[in-house]
Amino acid sequence: MPTIEEQVAELKSQFDAMNNKTPANKLAIIAFSGDLDKALAAFIIATGAVAMGMEVVMFFTFWGTPILRDKNKNVGGKDTMGKMFGTMLPKGPEKVKLSKMNMAGMGTAMMKSLMKKKNVASLEEMIALAEELGVKIFICEMSMDLMGFKREEMITYNGLQYAGVASFLAEANDSRVQLFI
Amino acid sequence: MPTIEEQVAELKSQFDAMNNKTPANKLAIIAFSGDLDKALAAFIIATGAVAMGMEVVMFFTFWGTPILRDKNKNVGGKDTMGKMFGTMLPKGPEKVKLSKMNMAGMGTAMMKSLMKKKNVASLEEMIALAEELGVKIFICEMSMDLMGFKREEMITYNGLQYAGVASFLAEANDSRVQLFI
Amino acid sequence: MPTIEEQVAELKSQFDAMNNKTPANKLAIIAFSGDLDKALAAFIIATGAVAMGMEVVMFFTFWGTPILRDKNKNVGGKDTMGKMFGTMLPKGPEKVKLSKMNMAGMGTAMMKSLMKKKNVASLEEMIALAEELGVKIFICEMSMDLMGFKREEMITYNGLQYAGVASFLAEANDSRVQLFI
Repeated sequence: MPTIEEQVAELKSQFDAMNNKTPANKLAIIAFSGDLDKALAAFIIATGAVAMGMEVVMFFTFWGTPILRDKNKNVGGKDTMGKMFGTMLPKGPEKVKLSKMNMAGMGTAMMKSLMKKKNVASLEEMIALAEELGVKIFICEMSMDLMGFKREEMITYNGLQYAGVASFLAEANDSRVQLFI
Repeated sequence: MPTIEEQVAELKSQFDAMNNKTPANKLAIIAFSGDLDKALAAFIIATGAVAMGMEVVMFFTFWGTPILRDKNKNVGGKDTMGKMFGTMLPKGPEKVKLSKMNMAGMGTAMMKSLMKKKNVASLEEMIALAEELGVKIFICEMSMDLMGFKREEMITYNGLQYAGVASFLAEANDSRVQLFI
Repeated sequence: MPTIEEQVAELKSQFDAMNNKTPANKLAIIAFSGDLDKALAAFIIATGAVAMGMEVVMFFTFWGTPILRDKNKNVGGKDTMGKMFGTMLPKGPEKVKLSKMNMAGMGTAMMKSLMKKKNVASLEEMIALAEELGVKIFICEMSMDLMGFKREEMITYNGLQYAGVASFLAEANDSRVQLFI
Protein backbone atom coordinates (compact mmCIF):
# COMPACT_ATOMS: atom_id res chain seq x y z
CA MET A 1 0.00 0.00 0.00
CA PRO A 2 1.54 3.32 -1.08
CA THR A 3 1.84 6.02 1.53
CA ILE A 4 -0.54 8.95 1.41
CA GLU A 5 2.28 11.12 0.04
CA GLU A 6 2.88 8.66 -2.81
CA GLN A 7 -0.82 8.51 -3.59
CA VAL A 8 -1.03 12.29 -3.80
CA ALA A 9 2.06 12.47 -6.00
CA GLU A 10 0.58 9.83 -8.34
CA LEU A 11 -2.74 11.67 -8.51
CA LYS A 12 -0.90 14.91 -9.31
CA SER A 13 0.96 13.35 -12.20
CA GLN A 14 -2.22 11.76 -13.60
CA PHE A 15 -3.94 15.10 -13.29
CA ASP A 16 -1.15 16.90 -15.14
CA ALA A 17 -1.27 14.30 -17.93
CA MET A 18 -4.99 14.87 -18.33
CA ASN A 19 -4.57 18.62 -18.22
CA ASN A 20 -2.12 18.41 -21.11
CA LYS A 21 -4.66 16.49 -23.19
CA THR A 22 -7.49 18.92 -22.48
CA PRO A 23 -8.28 20.97 -25.58
CA ALA A 24 -7.65 24.72 -25.51
CA ASN A 25 -10.44 27.29 -25.56
CA LYS A 26 -10.16 27.35 -29.33
CA LEU A 27 -12.33 27.20 -32.46
CA ALA A 28 -10.96 25.53 -35.60
CA ILE A 29 -12.82 26.18 -38.87
CA ILE A 30 -12.25 24.49 -42.22
CA ALA A 31 -13.35 27.11 -44.74
CA PHE A 32 -13.98 24.80 -47.69
CA SER A 33 -16.82 26.64 -49.39
CA GLY A 34 -16.47 29.33 -52.02
CA ASP A 35 -20.00 30.65 -51.43
CA LEU A 36 -20.54 34.16 -50.08
CA ASP A 37 -23.13 33.04 -47.54
CA LYS A 38 -20.93 30.31 -46.07
CA ALA A 39 -17.84 32.52 -46.06
CA LEU A 40 -19.83 35.18 -44.21
CA ALA A 41 -21.08 32.61 -41.71
CA ALA A 42 -17.52 31.39 -41.15
CA PHE A 43 -16.25 34.90 -40.42
CA ILE A 44 -19.25 35.86 -38.26
CA ILE A 45 -18.67 32.75 -36.15
CA ALA A 46 -14.90 33.29 -36.08
CA THR A 47 -15.03 36.93 -35.01
CA GLY A 48 -17.84 36.20 -32.54
CA ALA A 49 -15.72 33.48 -30.94
CA VAL A 50 -12.76 35.85 -30.49
CA ALA A 51 -15.10 38.35 -28.86
CA MET A 52 -15.99 35.60 -26.38
CA GLY A 53 -12.37 34.98 -25.49
CA MET A 54 -11.70 32.01 -27.75
CA GLU A 55 -8.66 31.58 -29.94
CA VAL A 56 -9.61 31.00 -33.61
CA VAL A 57 -7.88 29.28 -36.53
CA MET A 58 -9.34 29.14 -40.04
CA PHE A 59 -8.01 26.77 -42.66
CA PHE A 60 -8.90 27.87 -46.21
CA THR A 61 -8.98 24.98 -48.66
CA PHE A 62 -10.53 24.03 -52.03
CA TRP A 63 -13.12 26.64 -53.12
CA GLY A 64 -12.43 28.68 -49.99
CA THR A 65 -8.92 29.46 -51.22
CA PRO A 66 -9.76 32.02 -53.96
CA ILE A 67 -11.68 34.11 -51.41
CA LEU A 68 -8.28 35.17 -50.10
CA ARG A 69 -6.94 36.38 -53.45
CA ASP A 70 -6.12 40.08 -53.63
CA LYS A 71 -7.92 41.78 -56.50
CA ASN A 72 -5.08 44.29 -56.86
CA LYS A 73 -2.29 41.77 -57.14
CA ASN A 74 -1.45 40.21 -60.48
CA VAL A 75 1.10 37.56 -61.19
CA GLY A 76 2.39 36.10 -64.42
CA GLY A 77 4.09 32.88 -65.36
CA LYS A 78 1.11 30.57 -64.86
CA ASP A 79 0.57 27.48 -66.97
CA THR A 80 -2.66 26.95 -68.94
CA MET A 81 -4.50 25.26 -66.10
CA GLY A 82 -3.39 27.92 -63.61
CA LYS A 83 -4.64 30.63 -65.98
CA MET A 84 -8.00 28.86 -66.34
CA PHE A 85 -8.52 28.52 -62.60
CA GLY A 86 -7.35 32.10 -62.18
CA THR A 87 -10.00 33.33 -64.60
CA MET A 88 -12.88 31.11 -63.54
CA LEU A 89 -12.58 31.40 -59.77
CA PRO A 90 -13.48 34.61 -57.91
CA LYS A 91 -10.65 37.03 -57.37
CA GLY A 92 -11.10 38.02 -53.75
CA PRO A 93 -14.02 38.49 -51.35
CA GLU A 94 -15.86 41.06 -53.49
CA LYS A 95 -16.34 38.55 -56.29
CA VAL A 96 -17.78 35.73 -54.20
CA LYS A 97 -21.39 34.71 -54.95
CA LEU A 98 -24.33 33.40 -52.91
CA SER A 99 -24.96 29.63 -53.01
CA LYS A 100 -28.68 30.22 -53.50
CA MET A 101 -30.72 32.94 -55.16
CA ASN A 102 -27.66 34.24 -56.98
CA MET A 103 -29.90 34.81 -60.02
CA ALA A 104 -27.10 35.77 -62.39
CA GLY A 105 -25.56 38.04 -59.79
CA MET A 106 -28.72 40.00 -58.98
CA GLY A 107 -29.44 38.11 -55.75
CA THR A 108 -25.86 38.56 -54.59
CA ALA A 109 -25.98 42.30 -55.34
CA MET A 110 -29.31 42.62 -53.51
CA MET A 111 -28.01 40.73 -50.50
CA LYS A 112 -24.97 42.97 -50.34
CA SER A 113 -27.02 46.15 -50.49
CA LEU A 114 -29.36 44.72 -47.87
CA MET A 115 -26.43 43.85 -45.58
CA LYS A 116 -25.17 47.41 -45.91
CA LYS A 117 -28.58 48.82 -45.03
CA LYS A 118 -28.87 46.50 -42.01
CA ASN A 119 -25.32 47.33 -40.86
CA VAL A 120 -24.00 43.81 -41.39
CA ALA A 121 -20.31 43.92 -42.28
CA SER A 122 -19.31 42.88 -45.82
CA LEU A 123 -16.96 39.96 -46.40
CA GLU A 124 -14.04 42.36 -47.03
CA GLU A 125 -14.78 44.14 -43.76
CA MET A 126 -15.10 40.78 -41.95
CA ILE A 127 -11.64 39.74 -43.14
CA ALA A 128 -10.18 43.04 -41.93
CA LEU A 129 -11.94 42.61 -38.57
CA ALA A 130 -10.68 39.04 -38.25
CA GLU A 131 -7.13 40.28 -38.84
CA GLU A 132 -7.55 43.00 -36.21
CA LEU A 133 -8.92 40.47 -33.69
CA GLY A 134 -6.05 38.09 -34.28
CA VAL A 135 -7.92 35.28 -36.06
CA LYS A 136 -5.21 32.98 -37.42
CA ILE A 137 -5.52 32.11 -41.11
CA PHE A 138 -3.94 29.05 -42.73
CA ILE A 139 -4.14 28.55 -46.50
CA CYS A 140 -4.03 24.98 -47.77
CA GLU A 141 -0.81 24.38 -49.72
CA MET A 142 -2.29 21.56 -51.78
CA SER A 143 -5.16 23.78 -52.96
CA MET A 144 -2.73 26.57 -53.89
CA ASP A 145 -0.76 24.06 -55.92
CA LEU A 146 -3.80 22.44 -57.57
CA MET A 147 -5.39 25.75 -58.56
CA GLY A 148 -2.07 27.24 -59.63
CA PHE A 149 -2.31 30.19 -57.24
CA LYS A 150 0.89 31.94 -56.22
CA ARG A 151 1.57 33.39 -52.81
CA GLU A 152 2.17 36.84 -54.31
CA GLU A 153 -1.45 37.08 -55.45
CA MET A 154 -2.98 36.36 -52.04
CA ILE A 155 -4.14 39.01 -49.56
CA THR A 156 -1.78 40.66 -47.12
CA TYR A 157 -2.89 39.41 -43.71
CA ASN A 158 -1.00 39.52 -40.47
CA GLY A 159 0.43 36.10 -39.62
CA LEU A 160 -1.02 34.34 -42.70
CA GLN A 161 0.49 30.87 -43.03
CA TYR A 162 0.60 28.31 -45.83
CA ALA A 163 0.04 24.92 -44.29
CA GLY A 164 -0.81 21.30 -44.95
CA VAL A 165 -3.70 19.36 -43.49
CA ALA A 166 -1.45 18.04 -40.69
CA SER A 167 -0.84 21.53 -39.29
CA PHE A 168 -4.56 22.19 -39.31
CA LEU A 169 -5.37 18.87 -37.66
CA ALA A 170 -2.93 19.61 -34.87
CA GLU A 171 -4.90 22.81 -34.16
CA ALA A 172 -8.28 21.08 -34.49
CA ASN A 173 -7.22 18.33 -32.12
CA ASP A 174 -6.35 20.96 -29.53
CA SER A 175 -9.63 22.89 -29.91
CA ARG A 176 -12.96 22.67 -28.13
CA VAL A 177 -15.04 23.43 -31.23
CA GLN A 178 -14.49 22.41 -34.86
CA LEU A 179 -16.59 23.26 -37.89
CA PHE A 180 -16.40 22.26 -41.56
CA ILE A 181 -18.06 25.09 -43.49
CA MET B 1 7.30 22.23 0.98
CA PRO B 2 3.50 22.32 1.46
CA THR B 3 1.96 19.86 3.91
CA ILE B 4 0.06 16.88 2.57
CA GLU B 5 -3.19 18.61 3.53
CA GLU B 6 -2.23 21.68 1.51
CA GLN B 7 -1.27 19.52 -1.48
CA VAL B 8 -4.62 17.74 -1.42
CA ALA B 9 -6.51 21.03 -1.11
CA GLU B 10 -4.57 22.44 -4.08
CA LEU B 11 -5.25 19.33 -6.16
CA LYS B 12 -8.95 19.55 -5.32
CA SER B 13 -9.19 23.14 -6.46
CA GLN B 14 -7.32 22.36 -9.71
CA PHE B 15 -9.62 19.42 -10.28
CA ASP B 16 -12.73 21.56 -9.72
CA ALA B 17 -11.40 24.17 -12.16
CA MET B 18 -10.92 21.50 -14.81
CA ASN B 19 -14.32 20.00 -14.12
CA ASN B 20 -15.91 23.39 -14.76
CA LYS B 21 -14.18 23.60 -18.13
CA THR B 22 -15.23 20.10 -19.21
CA PRO B 23 -17.92 20.27 -21.89
CA ALA B 24 -21.38 18.94 -21.12
CA ASN B 25 -22.84 15.83 -22.75
CA LYS B 26 -24.32 18.07 -25.41
CA LEU B 27 -24.64 18.34 -29.20
CA ALA B 28 -24.68 21.78 -30.83
CA ILE B 29 -25.85 22.00 -34.46
CA ILE B 30 -25.70 25.01 -36.76
CA ALA B 31 -28.58 24.43 -39.16
CA PHE B 32 -27.39 26.67 -41.99
CA SER B 33 -28.76 24.78 -44.97
CA GLY B 34 -32.18 25.24 -46.53
CA ASP B 35 -32.09 21.85 -48.26
CA LEU B 36 -34.56 19.12 -47.30
CA ASP B 37 -31.88 16.42 -47.16
CA LYS B 38 -29.60 18.39 -44.84
CA ALA B 39 -32.49 19.54 -42.63
CA LEU B 40 -33.61 15.91 -42.32
CA ALA B 41 -30.06 14.84 -41.45
CA ALA B 42 -29.87 17.58 -38.81
CA PHE B 43 -33.10 16.46 -37.14
CA ILE B 44 -32.28 12.74 -37.39
CA ILE B 45 -28.95 13.40 -35.66
CA ALA B 46 -30.54 15.76 -33.11
CA THR B 47 -33.35 13.42 -32.10
CA GLY B 48 -30.98 10.42 -32.11
CA ALA B 49 -28.66 12.27 -29.74
CA VAL B 50 -31.47 13.00 -27.28
CA ALA B 51 -32.41 9.32 -27.36
CA MET B 52 -28.82 8.62 -26.29
CA GLY B 53 -29.05 10.93 -23.32
CA MET B 54 -27.43 14.00 -24.85
CA GLU B 55 -28.74 17.54 -24.56
CA VAL B 56 -29.23 19.14 -28.00
CA VAL B 57 -29.25 22.75 -29.23
CA MET B 58 -29.94 23.71 -32.84
CA PHE B 59 -29.15 27.19 -34.16
CA PHE B 60 -31.12 28.01 -37.33
CA THR B 61 -29.39 30.60 -39.47
CA PHE B 62 -29.26 31.84 -43.09
CA TRP B 63 -31.18 29.42 -45.40
CA GLY B 64 -32.10 27.25 -42.42
CA THR B 65 -34.28 30.03 -41.01
CA PRO B 66 -37.27 29.79 -43.42
CA ILE B 67 -37.66 26.08 -42.57
CA LEU B 68 -39.14 27.26 -39.28
CA ARG B 69 -41.80 29.49 -40.83
CA ASP B 70 -45.37 28.45 -40.13
CA LYS B 71 -47.37 28.03 -43.35
CA ASN B 72 -50.57 29.06 -41.57
CA LYS B 73 -49.28 32.32 -40.17
CA ASN B 74 -49.33 35.46 -42.28
CA VAL B 75 -47.98 38.85 -41.36
CA GLY B 76 -48.23 42.19 -43.07
CA GLY B 77 -46.22 45.37 -42.94
CA LYS B 78 -43.08 44.06 -44.68
CA ASP B 79 -40.93 46.28 -46.89
CA THR B 80 -40.20 45.33 -50.52
CA MET B 81 -37.16 43.26 -49.70
CA GLY B 82 -38.97 41.44 -46.91
CA LYS B 83 -41.82 40.64 -49.29
CA MET B 84 -39.39 39.30 -51.88
CA PHE B 85 -37.59 37.02 -49.43
CA GLY B 86 -40.97 35.97 -48.06
CA THR B 87 -42.10 34.89 -51.51
CA MET B 88 -38.91 33.31 -52.76
CA LEU B 89 -37.93 31.30 -49.70
CA PRO B 90 -39.82 28.18 -48.62
CA LYS B 91 -42.64 28.75 -46.17
CA GLY B 92 -42.09 25.98 -43.65
CA PRO B 93 -40.81 22.41 -43.67
CA GLU B 94 -43.28 21.14 -46.28
CA LYS B 95 -41.89 23.50 -48.91
CA VAL B 96 -38.23 22.62 -48.50
CA LYS B 97 -36.50 20.99 -51.50
CA LEU B 98 -33.73 18.42 -51.98
CA SER B 99 -30.23 19.74 -52.76
CA LYS B 100 -29.79 17.16 -55.50
CA MET B 101 -32.18 15.41 -57.88
CA ASN B 102 -34.90 17.96 -57.16
CA MET B 103 -35.81 17.81 -60.87
CA ALA B 104 -38.34 20.64 -60.75
CA GLY B 105 -39.88 19.22 -57.59
CA MET B 106 -40.40 15.69 -58.89
CA GLY B 107 -37.36 14.27 -57.07
CA THR B 108 -38.45 15.91 -53.83
CA ALA B 109 -41.98 14.53 -54.17
CA MET B 110 -40.62 11.06 -54.93
CA MET B 111 -38.27 11.16 -51.97
CA LYS B 112 -41.12 12.18 -49.68
CA SER B 113 -43.37 9.37 -50.87
CA LEU B 114 -40.46 6.95 -50.53
CA MET B 115 -39.77 8.13 -46.97
CA LYS B 116 -43.41 7.58 -46.10
CA LYS B 117 -43.33 4.05 -47.56
CA LYS B 118 -40.13 3.24 -45.64
CA ASN B 119 -41.52 4.69 -42.41
CA VAL B 120 -38.98 7.52 -42.22
CA ALA B 121 -40.52 10.53 -40.47
CA SER B 122 -41.16 13.65 -42.56
CA LEU B 123 -39.47 16.96 -41.73
CA GLU B 124 -42.70 18.24 -40.11
CA GLU B 125 -42.89 15.11 -37.96
CA MET B 126 -39.20 15.42 -37.08
CA ILE B 127 -39.73 18.97 -35.81
CA ALA B 128 -42.66 17.82 -33.68
CA LEU B 129 -40.58 14.93 -32.33
CA ALA B 130 -37.68 17.26 -31.55
CA GLU B 131 -40.04 19.51 -29.59
CA GLU B 132 -41.39 16.53 -27.66
CA LEU B 133 -37.86 15.34 -26.86
CA GLY B 134 -36.82 18.76 -25.62
CA VAL B 135 -34.40 19.72 -28.42
CA LYS B 136 -33.64 23.42 -27.88
CA ILE B 137 -34.08 25.63 -30.93
CA PHE B 138 -32.44 29.03 -31.38
CA ILE B 139 -33.26 31.18 -34.41
CA CYS B 140 -30.57 33.60 -35.59
CA GLU B 141 -31.69 37.18 -35.01
CA MET B 142 -29.47 38.57 -37.76
CA SER B 143 -31.00 36.19 -40.34
CA MET B 144 -34.53 37.15 -39.25
CA ASP B 145 -33.61 40.79 -39.70
CA LEU B 146 -31.85 40.32 -43.06
CA MET B 147 -34.64 38.24 -44.56
CA GLY B 148 -37.34 40.48 -43.09
CA PHE B 149 -39.04 37.63 -41.20
CA LYS B 150 -41.19 38.51 -38.21
CA ARG B 151 -41.48 36.45 -35.06
CA GLU B 152 -45.24 36.11 -35.53
CA GLU B 153 -44.77 34.09 -38.72
CA MET B 154 -42.46 31.47 -37.20
CA ILE B 155 -43.60 28.10 -35.86
CA THR B 156 -44.91 27.65 -32.34
CA TYR B 157 -42.26 25.55 -30.60
CA ASN B 158 -41.80 25.04 -26.91
CA GLY B 159 -38.90 27.15 -25.62
CA LEU B 160 -37.98 28.62 -29.03
CA GLN B 161 -35.48 31.45 -28.59
CA TYR B 162 -34.22 34.23 -30.84
CA ALA B 163 -30.51 34.55 -30.31
CA GLY B 164 -27.29 35.97 -31.66
CA VAL B 165 -24.17 34.04 -32.60
CA ALA B 166 -22.70 34.66 -29.13
CA SER B 167 -25.49 32.73 -27.38
CA PHE B 168 -24.96 29.84 -29.75
CA LEU B 169 -21.18 29.87 -29.31
CA ALA B 170 -21.59 29.70 -25.54
CA GLU B 171 -23.59 26.48 -26.02
CA ALA B 172 -21.16 25.08 -28.61
CA ASN B 173 -18.19 25.79 -26.35
CA ASP B 174 -19.88 23.77 -23.61
CA SER B 175 -20.74 20.80 -25.87
CA ARG B 176 -18.91 17.59 -26.70
CA VAL B 177 -20.05 17.49 -30.34
CA GLN B 178 -20.60 20.34 -32.81
CA LEU B 179 -21.79 20.15 -36.40
CA PHE B 180 -22.25 22.76 -39.14
CA ILE B 181 -24.93 21.38 -41.43
CA MET C 1 -14.22 16.61 8.41
CA PRO C 2 -12.99 13.58 6.39
CA THR C 3 -9.48 12.31 7.05
CA ILE C 4 -6.75 13.05 4.54
CA GLU C 5 -6.93 9.43 3.34
CA GLU C 6 -10.67 9.77 2.71
CA GLN C 7 -10.13 13.01 0.84
CA VAL C 8 -7.52 11.43 -1.42
CA ALA C 9 -9.74 8.40 -2.09
CA GLU C 10 -12.64 10.70 -3.00
CA LEU C 11 -10.43 12.77 -5.31
CA LYS C 12 -9.20 9.60 -7.00
CA SER C 13 -12.70 8.38 -7.70
CA GLN C 14 -13.76 11.79 -9.07
CA PHE C 15 -10.66 11.80 -11.24
CA ASP C 16 -11.42 8.34 -12.62
CA ALA C 17 -15.00 9.36 -13.40
CA MET C 18 -13.73 12.37 -15.35
CA ASN C 19 -11.13 10.29 -17.14
CA ASN C 20 -13.85 7.94 -18.36
CA LYS C 21 -15.80 10.87 -19.81
CA THR C 22 -12.77 12.31 -21.61
CA PRO C 23 -13.09 11.81 -25.38
CA ALA C 24 -10.60 9.57 -27.16
CA ASN C 25 -7.99 10.84 -29.61
CA LYS C 26 -10.47 10.26 -32.40
CA LEU C 27 -11.94 11.99 -35.46
CA ALA C 28 -15.56 11.29 -36.42
CA ILE C 29 -16.67 12.37 -39.92
CA ILE C 30 -20.19 12.37 -41.32
CA ALA C 31 -19.65 11.94 -45.06
CA PHE C 32 -23.00 13.31 -46.24
CA SER C 33 -21.97 14.86 -49.53
CA GLY C 34 -21.90 13.12 -52.89
CA ASP C 35 -19.52 15.68 -54.42
CA LEU C 36 -16.04 14.67 -55.52
CA ASP C 37 -14.40 17.68 -53.90
CA LYS C 38 -16.01 17.10 -50.50
CA ALA C 39 -15.39 13.35 -50.61
CA LEU C 40 -11.72 14.04 -51.39
CA ALA C 41 -11.53 16.53 -48.53
CA ALA C 42 -13.09 13.98 -46.17
CA PHE C 43 -10.54 11.31 -47.10
CA ILE C 44 -7.58 13.71 -47.06
CA ILE C 45 -8.54 14.79 -43.53
CA ALA C 46 -9.27 11.19 -42.45
CA THR C 47 -5.98 9.74 -43.69
CA GLY C 48 -4.06 12.77 -42.42
CA ALA C 49 -5.55 12.26 -38.96
CA VAL C 50 -4.49 8.59 -38.87
CA ALA C 51 -0.99 9.66 -39.85
CA MET C 52 -1.03 11.90 -36.76
CA GLY C 53 -1.98 9.06 -34.47
CA MET C 54 -5.73 9.63 -34.32
CA GLU C 55 -8.36 6.94 -34.65
CA VAL C 56 -10.85 7.76 -37.45
CA VAL C 57 -14.47 6.78 -38.10
CA MET C 58 -16.39 7.85 -41.21
CA PHE C 59 -20.16 7.54 -41.42
CA PHE C 60 -21.42 7.55 -45.02
CA THR C 61 -25.00 8.73 -45.31
CA PHE C 62 -27.41 10.25 -47.89
CA TRP C 63 -25.50 11.28 -51.06
CA GLY C 64 -22.25 9.99 -49.58
CA THR C 65 -23.56 6.43 -49.69
CA PRO C 66 -23.30 5.77 -53.48
CA ILE C 67 -19.60 6.72 -53.39
CA LEU C 68 -19.03 3.34 -51.78
CA ARG C 69 -20.75 1.32 -54.49
CA ASP C 70 -18.52 -1.08 -56.38
CA LYS C 71 -18.67 -0.49 -60.14
CA ASN C 72 -17.99 -4.18 -60.80
CA LYS C 73 -20.78 -5.53 -58.65
CA ASN C 74 -24.29 -5.83 -60.03
CA VAL C 75 -27.38 -6.94 -58.19
CA GLY C 76 -30.86 -7.70 -59.37
CA GLY C 77 -34.23 -7.82 -57.72
CA LYS C 78 -34.63 -4.08 -57.10
CA ASP C 79 -38.00 -2.37 -57.19
CA THR C 80 -38.68 0.58 -59.54
CA MET C 81 -37.48 3.20 -57.08
CA GLY C 82 -34.34 1.22 -56.30
CA LYS C 83 -33.59 0.92 -60.02
CA MET C 84 -34.06 4.66 -60.51
CA PHE C 85 -31.72 5.58 -57.65
CA GLY C 86 -29.30 2.96 -58.91
CA THR C 87 -29.20 4.55 -62.35
CA MET C 88 -29.20 8.19 -61.33
CA LEU C 89 -26.64 8.10 -58.53
CA PRO C 90 -22.92 7.59 -59.21
CA LYS C 91 -21.73 4.02 -59.15
CA GLY C 92 -18.54 4.26 -57.11
CA PRO C 93 -15.78 6.82 -56.57
CA GLU C 94 -14.84 7.11 -60.26
CA LYS C 95 -18.26 8.44 -61.16
CA VAL C 96 -18.45 11.16 -58.52
CA LYS C 97 -18.56 14.78 -59.79
CA LEU C 98 -17.29 18.15 -58.59
CA SER C 99 -19.79 20.40 -56.79
CA LYS C 100 -18.62 23.41 -58.79
CA MET C 101 -17.20 23.84 -62.27
CA ASN C 102 -18.37 20.38 -63.29
CA MET C 103 -19.28 21.86 -66.70
CA ALA C 104 -20.99 18.74 -68.03
CA GLY C 105 -18.16 16.57 -66.76
CA MET C 106 -15.32 18.55 -68.35
CA GLY C 107 -14.34 20.30 -65.11
CA THR C 108 -14.32 17.01 -63.24
CA ALA C 109 -12.17 15.36 -65.91
CA MET C 110 -9.76 18.31 -65.90
CA MET C 111 -9.51 18.27 -62.11
CA LYS C 112 -8.75 14.56 -62.14
CA SER C 113 -6.01 14.91 -64.75
CA LEU C 114 -4.62 17.85 -62.78
CA MET C 115 -4.61 15.85 -59.56
CA LYS C 116 -2.72 13.08 -61.31
CA LYS C 117 -0.15 15.53 -62.64
CA LYS C 118 0.29 17.07 -59.18
CA ASN C 119 0.55 13.66 -57.53
CA VAL C 120 -2.63 14.06 -55.50
CA ALA C 121 -4.23 10.66 -54.91
CA SER C 122 -7.54 9.93 -56.67
CA LEU C 123 -10.68 9.14 -54.67
CA GLU C 124 -10.28 5.42 -55.44
CA GLU C 125 -6.68 5.53 -54.19
CA MET C 126 -7.77 7.48 -51.11
CA ILE C 127 -10.30 4.81 -50.20
CA ALA C 128 -7.65 2.11 -50.58
CA LEU C 129 -5.25 4.14 -48.44
CA ALA C 130 -7.91 4.66 -45.79
CA GLU C 131 -8.49 0.91 -45.65
CA GLU C 132 -4.77 0.27 -45.31
CA LEU C 133 -4.49 2.83 -42.50
CA GLY C 134 -7.40 1.32 -40.61
CA VAL C 135 -9.95 4.12 -41.08
CA LYS C 136 -13.27 2.66 -39.88
CA ILE C 137 -16.18 3.03 -42.31
CA PHE C 138 -19.84 2.88 -41.29
CA ILE C 139 -22.56 2.99 -43.95
CA CYS C 140 -25.93 4.40 -42.90
CA GLU C 141 -28.57 1.67 -42.91
CA MET C 142 -31.43 4.09 -43.43
CA SER C 143 -29.77 5.54 -46.57
CA MET C 144 -29.17 2.03 -47.95
CA ASP C 145 -32.83 1.27 -47.42
CA LEU C 146 -34.13 4.57 -48.84
CA MET C 147 -31.97 4.39 -51.97
CA GLY C 148 -32.63 0.69 -52.42
CA PHE C 149 -28.92 -0.25 -52.33
CA LYS C 150 -28.01 -3.81 -51.40
CA ARG C 151 -24.98 -4.81 -49.37
CA GLU C 152 -23.72 -7.01 -52.21
CA GLU C 153 -23.20 -4.02 -54.47
CA MET C 154 -21.04 -2.03 -52.01
CA ILE C 155 -17.23 -2.03 -52.01
CA THR C 156 -15.21 -4.68 -50.24
CA TYR C 157 -13.53 -2.83 -47.37
CA ASN C 158 -11.94 -4.31 -44.30
CA GLY C 159 -14.20 -3.94 -41.28
CA LEU C 160 -16.98 -2.11 -43.15
CA GLN C 161 -20.09 -1.88 -40.96
CA TYR C 162 -23.72 -1.05 -41.64
CA ALA C 163 -24.93 1.11 -38.80
CA GLY C 164 -27.64 3.44 -37.62
CA VAL C 165 -27.18 7.02 -36.45
CA ALA C 166 -26.96 5.86 -32.81
CA SER C 167 -23.78 3.83 -33.46
CA PHE C 168 -22.22 6.82 -35.14
CA LEU C 169 -23.24 9.20 -32.36
CA ALA C 170 -21.64 6.91 -29.78
CA GLU C 171 -18.36 7.26 -31.70
CA ALA C 172 -18.77 11.01 -32.19
CA ASN C 173 -19.48 11.54 -28.51
CA ASP C 174 -16.21 9.77 -27.68
CA SER C 175 -14.11 11.76 -30.20
CA ARG C 176 -12.12 14.97 -29.90
CA VAL C 177 -12.97 16.22 -33.40
CA GLN C 178 -16.22 15.89 -35.39
CA LEU C 179 -16.94 17.13 -38.89
CA PHE C 180 -20.08 17.11 -41.06
CA ILE C 181 -18.86 17.15 -44.64
